[in-house]
Amino acid sequence: MAWRMRVVELAAWIAVDWGTSNLRAWGMSDTGDPLFERVSDKGMAKLAPDAFGPVLSELLGDAVPEGRTLKTLICGMAGARQGWLEAPYLDAPADLSALGRAAVMPEIADSRFAPRILPGVCQRGLGQEDVMRGEETQLLGLSTLQPGYSGVVVLPGTHSKWAVLEGHQLVRFSTAMTGEIYEALGSHTVLRHSLKDAGIGPERDEGVDAGIAAGLEAPERLAGMIFKVRAAALLSGRSADWCAGYLSGLLIGAEIGAHRHWIGSAPIPIIGGSTLSALYARALGMTGAECVPVDVRTATLAGLSAAAQH
Amino acid sequence: MAWRMRVVELAAWIAVDWGTSNLRAWGMSDTGDPLFERVSDKGMAKLAPDAFGPVLSELLGDAVPEGRTLKTLICGMAGARQGWLEAPYLDAPADLSALGRAAVMPEIADSRFAPRILPGVCQRGLGQEDVMRGEETQLLGLSTLQPGYSGVVVLPGTHSKWAVLEGHQLVRFSTAMTGEIYEALGSHTVLRHSLKDAGIGPERDEGVDAGIAAGLEAPERLAGMIFKVRAAALLSGRSADWCAGYLSGLLIGAEIGAHRHWIGSAPIPIIGGSTLSALYARALGMTGAECVPVDVRTATLAGLSAAAQH
Repeated sequence: MAWRMRVVELAAWIAVDWGTSNLRAWGMSDTGDPLFERVSDKGMAKLAPDAFGPVLSELLGDAVPEGRTLKTLICGMAGARQGWLEAPYLDAPADLSALGRAAVMPEIADSRFAPRILPGVCQRGLGQEDVMRGEETQLLGLSTLQPGYSGVVVLPGTHSKWAVLEGHQLVRFSTAMTGEIYEALGSHTVLRHSLKDAGIGPERDEGVDAGIAAGLEAPERLAGMIFKVRAAALLSGRSADWCAGYLSGLLIGAEIGAHRHWIGSAPIPIIGGSTLSALYARALGMTGAECVPVDVRTATLAGLSAAAQH
Repeated sequence: MAWRMRVVELAAWIAVDWGTSNLRAWGMSDTGDPLFERVSDKGMAKLAPDAFGPVLSELLGDAVPEGRTLKTLICGMAGARQGWLEAPYLDAPADLSALGRAAVMPEIADSRFAPRILPGVCQRGLGQEDVMRGEETQLLGLSTLQPGYSGVVVLPGTHSKWAVLEGHQLVRFSTAMTGEIYEALGSHTVLRHSLKDAGIGPERDEGVDAGIAAGLEAPERLAGMIFKVRAAALLSGRSADWCAGYLSGLLIGAEIGAHRHWIGSAPIPIIGGSTLSALYARALGMTGAECVPVDVRTATLAGLSAAAQH
């Protein structure tokens, strides 16, 4: 406890990534280094608007002495309409260095925190409509970690995002619900019989590679290829591991295929967890693209730090 | 009852379409006309192998007098491995006029029925694997209703089938799980918020048309377009009706796009229920294709009649 208090006294401000399912908060030094991290499962989806303030106090209260007021910069779904306080979207193309200036200030009873929620970014136009909340901060972070980078950035996940950056400028982006589609098809269609009790192992890897190759080769045939998972189990006795790998690879391959025209010659930053980033790097490698993995926490903190300075 | 008995005495044989969820049986005349129809919800998925015989007796027992034995020709999932008795697949390319000769004979205690289950058709080969059970009989029926027809046939549904026929020959086919994918995405992903309580009406039609156009234009971008449903609700306040229509149209458009290279110049037979067939005809019409709706019951009975004669 004594140690914790001592560290916290050095914290100059609080960085928060408040997502749909979880919440991560860091005490940050003046120089932008995280001094401590707190994690909670009180994501936006579980909270009414008036519950956000108390959750922050509970998570960090013992770490901030009375009498101080720390700037608390928040990115993510806390700024959604159904979150703490809506932070209206910036429109793409968007200057990400303007994120901090567009933050909104929700009310909080605990005077030790001065919370500001960063906006998400939306994209308008027929057939182009899209939204992000949280990833824009990681992209701002990337643009400070790799100053001047121009090209595509991939953020794989439940809702994968593909973005084209020109320095601090977010030119355009697109969402592929790859992780969520995998879950829905694997759990709630006839494919569930073929994926039952699937684990990891060499057959899964083999399935992944076959699926990626199929998805990349003909993303326009995705609608006709999903059933191949079931047919491969029935006709070739493919294992659950293989089928799970194939479905996952097929969706990732089709996601990459859908955005192939965005891929340039520069090595592609992939912002994500290590397992998923490695999988996407493998798939992107099959198109000849080089990738640079970027840790998602590093990108988030770099983005919140950059926004805090603007 | 007297009327029913009189009609039944004319029945020369029994035609049965035994699917996953339902069961339809018809008493057939010598000339291939249905004399009566019986429907039950005792589909394959609800029955253990030894329950099929009793279900048949119960559904038709009062319609077949003792002392007679009626040939009872069955198509569909009753012939699956987990059905009454497995009827091994014919391999595509397959001569559909051989369906009757490949039928299997399950055991039944009730001597008034002599059941035979028609096989399904499978397709082997890397990335081509596929299976059908039931549709092959409808395709045989079509080949007798439109003798010599060569070209693609579309059978829309929970699992849509696309088949290329040359007369009685089933050259190749492909399954698109369009109906089931719609249900899984609309009920078990973030899209459910945008589709909640969706009904029918002009906004649905508008959404369907926009979705079909998007799916047809770029089926290779399907993975990146599914989230547009959610974005359109958030950014443009699209109604649940519109969103449901858009998702449905997008998946149908992508299904057609995935099989576009199969479409020739001949008018395309669509075997299905009237609402779904009309929807597919509208979508196919947007590619310039002409369509001929074929009632699914008519095709099934024509197929079972043809198989009964071989």
